[in-house]
Amino acid sequence: MPETEPDVFYILGNKVRRDLLSHLTCTECYFSFLSNKVSVSSTAVAKHLKIMEREGILKSYEREGPFLGPARKYYEINTAKTYVVTLTPNLFWYRGLELSNDGLKKASIDISGIPEKHEGLLDEVQSFLLLTKELEKVLELLRTIESRRNELMREIKERYLREIGDMTQLAILHYILLTGGATVDELSDRLNLKEREVLVKAQELDRFVPLRIKENFIEIDEERLKQNGGDTNAGED
Amino acid sequence: MPETEPDVFYILGNKVRRDLLSHLTCTECYFSFLSNKVSVSSTAVAKHLKIMEREGILKSYEREGPFLGPARKYYEINTAKTYVVTLTPNLFWYRGLELSNDGLKKASIDISGIPEKHEGLLDEVQSFLLLTKELEKVLELLRTIESRRNELMREIKERYLREIGDMTQLAILHYILLTGGATVDELSDRLNLKEREVLVKAQELDRFVPLRIKENFIEIDEERLKQNGGDTNAGED
Repeated sequence: MPETEPDVFYILGNKVRRDLLSHLTCTECYFSFLSNKVSVSSTAVAKHLKIMEREGILKSYEREGPFLGPARKYYEINTAKTYVVTLTPNLFWYRGLELSNDGLKKASIDISGIPEKHEGLLDEVQSFLLLTKELEKVLELLRTIESRRNELMREIKERYLREIGDMTQLAILHYILLTGGATVDELSDRLNLKEREVLVKAQELDRFVPLRIKENFIEIDEERLKQNGGDTNAGED
Repeated sequence: MPETEPDVFYILGNKVRRDLLSHLTCTECYFSFLSNKVSVSSTAVAKHLKIMEREGILKSYEREGPFLGPARKYYEINTAKTYVVTLTPNLFWYRGLELSNDGLKKASIDISGIPEKHEGLLDEVQSFLLLTKELEKVLELLRTIESRRNELMREIKERYLREIGDMTQLAILHYILLTGGATVDELSDRLNLKEREVLVKAQELDRFVPLRIKENFIEIDEERLKQNGGDTNAGED
């Protein structure tokens, strides 16, 4: 456990920073955009961005804005890891998994054969080691799956902006892909939009990615998605 | 993502608190014992313990010590969870998994069939959902494995104290089971012992659990462990 690792827990231990990170994963962000999305002063936002940059979680770059004037400072997340922590009365460990596409892509995990009752200390130690071996496989799978999901989300974002170009629709898509679905209220809080606007934008998004909007809950319509599967440009119907 | 969840990141975002948690998973801890194990003032230790109690990570109870005088206050960890966080330029999510013995015990995970190249947005969304389903299985396995390892570690600790009764040997065993092995220096720092004492205690431990001690690195000797497997009381030889 390298001692530089856990700074990420310090970063995550603050709600404003977590909110900023959420916005940063969804779209290109410059300072005043981020500042409008969270409910604290711009001084506080500047402080949190500075802390995250110092810890290497964020990097910034300058680019000209759409108007005349000084270049804008953009921020992006500068790490790609999955962190796992177990905390129980008998175990405490944590690890940062560097995401990798070259890892384990398939595995059978089976702990059903590892005994639950033990006669002595050595049996217990042996079972513990067997469980730990299965744990290592699970962590390897986690690395590969998250690496692939990260890659795919990047492709989805790039394609959406290139082909459709609406940032708010994309933000809704991004959020419901990550959470498996969300209420209109949740999206309204998350994206700083009126409920009405969420619904309008969700209906627009539905023209490109089939949604199920029912009793204020928005999710991907997997049935319709499967029927459309394979089309290069399934938005036109 | 319930908003009470992430307090654990705040707790973990401090090295002294992480050290205290490590010691707490290994043995029964009262205040002055903990205070001796970490390198900050007892005022600071008291503050950190109070914060962790307030957040529900620790609970305390009073019990009479071995000598006359006021009852001692003991602390123990009051949660049993595995936390997973992914942070990349395109994804940010976290979840606290309540450990459970009744979960998934075997599964085949296979993402090798999920396409890596996509023709359109819908294909990409579909692959993302397929990856997410495999991710959910992996998280279920993680819950079960960690629940079993927690249970087993509790049994190992209880048996070691009952049958052998040496806390320092147990602390070495606990640490190398969790990390897969450790250098003498690491154990010396961790357990606040002289290197010499670590080696003596490791040799004592080796009488009950076979160890490989080589070039200052201590780990379980899996070969000898397998040969001994099945003995009820393998310490006597």
